[in-house]
Amino acid sequence: MTLQRLVVDPIQMQADQLHLTAEQQRYLHRVLRYRPGDRFMALDGHGHQWLAELTPDLALAVVVSPGASVVPAPQVDITLMAALPKGNSFDQVVRQATELGVSCIQPVISDRTLLHPSPKRLDRWRRIAAEAMEQSEQPRVPPILAPCPWSSLLIPSPEARYLCVARQDAPSLLACLLQQSYRRITIAIGPEGGWSPSEVEAALVAGFQPVSLGNTVLRAVTAPVVALAVAHAAANLQAVDH
Amino acid sequence: MTLQRLVVDPIQMQADQLHLTAEQQRYLHRVLRYRPGDRFMALDGHGHQWLAELTPDLALAVVVSPGASVVPAPQVDITLMAALPKGNSFDQVVRQATELGVSCIQPVISDRTLLHPSPKRLDRWRRIAAEAMEQSEQPRVPPILAPCPWSSLLIPSPEARYLCVARQDAPSLLACLLQQSYRRITIAIGPEGGWSPSEVEAALVAGFQPVSLGNTVLRAVTAPVVALAVAHAAANLQAVDH
Repeated sequence: MTLQRLVVDPIQMQADQLHLTAEQQRYLHRVLRYRPGDRFMALDGHGHQWLAELTPDLALAVVVSPGASVVPAPQVDITLMAALPKGNSFDQVVRQATELGVSCIQPVISDRTLLHPSPKRLDRWRRIAAEAMEQSEQPRVPPILAPCPWSSLLIPSPEARYLCVARQDAPSLLACLLQQSYRRITIAIGPEGGWSPSEVEAALVAGFQPVSLGNTVLRAVTAPVVALAVAHAAANLQAVDH
Repeated sequence: MTLQRLVVDPIQMQADQLHLTAEQQRYLHRVLRYRPGDRFMALDGHGHQWLAELTPDLALAVVVSPGASVVPAPQVDITLMAALPKGNSFDQVVRQATELGVSCIQPVISDRTLLHPSPKRLDRWRRIAAEAMEQSEQPRVPPILAPCPWSSLLIPSPEARYLCVARQDAPSLLACLLQQSYRRITIAIGPEGGWSPSEVEAALVAGFQPVSLGNTVLRAVTAPVVALAVAHAAANLQAVDH
């Protein structure tokens, strides 16, 4: 049985007391029906966690083990750059990418992107990431950066960066990742309809390596999960080998 | 530019004429605004396809190339056995598994499965698979078998069969698949909360190999996509190597 996990803001923690928000109180007491003495894990979303215990005061929990424990950083940092799909489907991308342990999500405005999200939408994605982090037992919530035009992200970098392309004769992402092990990689996924030819060209000039996710045509909402699944599997394999 | 694809029933095809259903007529003429002379690809979902051209008669298309062309079978047949998650989320599993080119889907009733689907639900999954097949340019629509209790699926078999388990010290699915290449594999995914201990034990007795999908906890709706992404990437890698 794993402990319930709850993301908290570090300012809620004073000495060894955790001051619960109204929403957290409702969740612990009404939804989970926790009682004084019940324990849960409080996380700050940046790799620190505390074992906490509810007190008779509904608004307060005490930290059982003094000081935070720090969860080790992942073997590989993966940044996902994903062109925004239509409608609400980026919600699913954020949820599944967080489950898979992505390190950072950069939403991309590409030539064929139809969605121009409001700041409210960005808040929504951040809430979804925090929820997915709690559920999937991740120690960190991936930052979700403000959406950027593709051209502004094409700055030369020494990191390994992959551009997923469909219907082209590119090596597979898995083949590329098994050739060498990396501490940090970036994977870029296009919108419905794919990257425009000039976007692909500009990315190659900036040092992105074109890769294939296989010979099927994936929706914009599925391609990020597939790429992250392959990248994490390759990273785990290399961690075992070394 | 790829041609529009449309799944048809073989009984719609008489000599070299394709009789369109009312729904197909609406889709081609009203939604896509096709005109007489416009062409599309008709598929039977079993690997046969025909290049067809609309006639002035709205209900009729003619086959341009006589005889069906047969799309080669995939390098590896992957059967997904997946325990049914709550609510409607198996819809997403069917859609994403079809996109990834799964060969067959067997819904599983496990000890912790809450959903007991009606025959109507099975029809819905089959429609979703046909749609996903059209969109993702797959030549075949994966059969979706009737849901079965887990115990009835544990018949000894010479095939490579993997049981995905969470929070256990199992080798990774990718490591197992890179050791040897297979023509047919089966991957089994548990429900929310995982397989029960007796279900795991019975599967090992029946010859399933326990495997891990990494050190994160995936939802029942995400785990199948992750497993299929890894299995297809491994199969493609071996196809290139050989």
